[in-house]
Amino acid sequence: VSDSYKTLGASASKAGLHQALTQAGLAAGEDLFAPVCADVAGDPAYSCFLHADGAGTKTIVSYLRYRETGDPQVFAGLAQDALVMNLDDVFCIGTPSSLLLSNAISRNARLIGDDALTVLLSAYKELQRRFAALGIPIELAGGETADCGDVVRTLVVDAVLFGRIRTERLIRASRISAGDVIVGLSSTGQATYEDTPNSGIASNGLTLARHCLLSKAATAAYPEVLDPNLDPNVAYRGPFGVQDSADGLSMSVGEALSSPTRSYAPVLAAVYAQLPDSIHAAIHLTGGAQTKVLRFGRGLRIVKDQLFPVPPLFSLIRQHGQVPWREMYQVFNMGHRLELYLPPSAAERAIAVAGKFGIEGRIIGHVEAHGDPAANLVCLRTEQGEFEYSR
Amino acid sequence: VSDSYKTLGASASKAGLHQALTQAGLAAGEDLFAPVCADVAGDPAYSCFLHADGAGTKTIVSYLRYRETGDPQVFAGLAQDALVMNLDDVFCIGTPSSLLLSNAISRNARLIGDDALTVLLSAYKELQRRFAALGIPIELAGGETADCGDVVRTLVVDAVLFGRIRTERLIRASRISAGDVIVGLSSTGQATYEDTPNSGIASNGLTLARHCLLSKAATAAYPEVLDPNLDPNVAYRGPFGVQDSADGLSMSVGEALSSPTRSYAPVLAAVYAQLPDSIHAAIHLTGGAQTKVLRFGRGLRIVKDQLFPVPPLFSLIRQHGQVPWREMYQVFNMGHRLELYLPPSAAERAIAVAGKFGIEGRIIGHVEAHGDPAANLVCLRTEQGEFEYSR
Repeated sequence: VSDSYKTLGASASKAGLHQALTQAGLAAGEDLFAPVCADVAGDPAYSCFLHADGAGTKTIVSYLRYRETGDPQVFAGLAQDALVMNLDDVFCIGTPSSLLLSNAISRNARLIGDDALTVLLSAYKELQRRFAALGIPIELAGGETADCGDVVRTLVVDAVLFGRIRTERLIRASRISAGDVIVGLSSTGQATYEDTPNSGIASNGLTLARHCLLSKAATAAYPEVLDPNLDPNVAYRGPFGVQDSADGLSMSVGEALSSPTRSYAPVLAAVYAQLPDSIHAAIHLTGGAQTKVLRFGRGLRIVKDQLFPVPPLFSLIRQHGQVPWREMYQVFNMGHRLELYLPPSAAERAIAVAGKFGIEGRIIGHVEAHGDPAANLVCLRTEQGEFEYSR
Repeated sequence: VSDSYKTLGASASKAGLHQALTQAGLAAGEDLFAPVCADVAGDPAYSCFLHADGAGTKTIVSYLRYRETGDPQVFAGLAQDALVMNLDDVFCIGTPSSLLLSNAISRNARLIGDDALTVLLSAYKELQRRFAALGIPIELAGGETADCGDVVRTLVVDAVLFGRIRTERLIRASRISAGDVIVGLSSTGQATYEDTPNSGIASNGLTLARHCLLSKAATAAYPEVLDPNLDPNVAYRGPFGVQDSADGLSMSVGEALSSPTRSYAPVLAAVYAQLPDSIHAAIHLTGGAQTKVLRFGRGLRIVKDQLFPVPPLFSLIRQHGQVPWREMYQVFNMGHRLELYLPPSAAERAIAVAGKFGIEGRIIGHVEAHGDPAANLVCLRTEQGEFEYSR
């Protein structure tokens, strides 16, 4: 599994990490999409979370665009990436009653100047304004910027989200049941609260995407975007520069690869409000992508047979990287980045809610009982073939 | 100011960052050592904080020791560095009533294996146990590990601390007044709750320390510990390898440089409990070191004329790096990493509390009124001369 990705020093399954977490007694549960702990204020009606995530190697795409265009504004999307990768994880367990954000930036100050820093920090302020207008207030609690060029080649943009959430309203993904249908929410198009169309990539699989699409010619002037120990046969093996256009893409390759991570949080909040007891699970397709749901519940056979058409950017990555389809579905969301598991009777309303935000929803599959009550299986029936993944 | 440090791509004053924060409307205040916001549970009796910091480039020293010894246990101290750099900041505003910790690791998975990851994550569990035994419970709320070798040469170890704290008990550093004395708490020696003596370095100035002490010969086999764009005249210009001993050091150079950051939190909690209204400010000498206090209050002339003897590690850095003394005091704590500002009558008790924990305290200076009510001045009267720094 995930051979292309592994060669590049990343892992879709993160098996090594999960083993390390288990050995340290810190393994994730099978019940909640994001872990919670007891309320800091001691109120049993509430739970708390402190969630960390970041923009990953997507910073490299923004950096390359910055070097090509000279415009520091290309860094603004990374604040959205870091925030939303957290926000959409925590909205999978429900609608928090309060949110605090802290940001952490590590940079090579020789390459990432104070102009970039100003753009990034201002972008957090602008995101706060936008989410507040969508009914999601987020307090900016502070942050840290470290100049550490001996450790960081270019830029790391991370964020942490603290929140409180009503315990009885927590969405426990272990409720996924045989008979549920799966509503997928499109990762492409343009939501009513977005300024531009989204390529769909979010902040996962960027290592594979970069190396499949961008070329050595395009990156040769910037050795700082590459681990020098990477096999040259796999590193930046594509045909494109960040400014290039490509067949089927409505934006440049660089714009598509750095398309800011869409937040589904406004949609989820509205779905939870309108269907308070119907949502058995909300799954954010991050690391593991279409197999992400495998961790939750037991004895389930999750059949996805009505997937969205593969978005152009992912087709391009597959074509130029010669990535097996089986692996594409493990690394990239391939068309929908958010799944709702719910009874068939509730599906139409959930889809209607998403539609009001300009996001296409559709029933992409359903849940059956698995013969083995201890196992989970994901079966993808796609135009490119059938693929099965087990827990 | 800080020329040696600047040449290395770091900055003691972080002027660029502060300008970026100001432009983004996120500038730090002059009142509290660590920023707080309104309570997440809506209780005006409480305030909250969400604080981010990390081990910085200290990870490089552990990495070099790992490569020389093959022992992944050398990574354990980094968990303490990341946690304590947060913990001691927030204890400067008082004793929190609850603490949640999240950790963020970014690694080059080709160089930093799962063995290192297991050591790091287990170290957080052990730290939780130890702090709980000292009356400081910390909940481990989760974390994130990213494999991103194209961005991170070796390893980034960051942490975030959320906490709640009683608003009326917040220590407002703006209370520093003419007439106060300054009690410094030693950064060296061995506290009752420490396993080994501390070199005093904590997690600040590691970029300068590494390049002044370690040699090109010692790091040549590991090009991954260096920004290749660094001027070779300043990079790793010292005479030592991490395993070497050095005059006056009771431990190897590598052990001294990676000595885990001491926490003063148990001492501070006890001082606050015994002298509930006397502590005008607690200052954690991180970035800016002996000039850190300049940000707080106004119209103050802060005279430090009884400093601790310069610890051997700092003497060694100065000697081999030919760093001006004036800059040494801006980058390194030089003997005490925690300052208490309090009335003379309370000093003896504060020193006695620290002594019970095996940490030497002493009056290292006092506060006078400055002629200009808008300015602040730090005057160091040292064996090496007098140095003045203004805000």
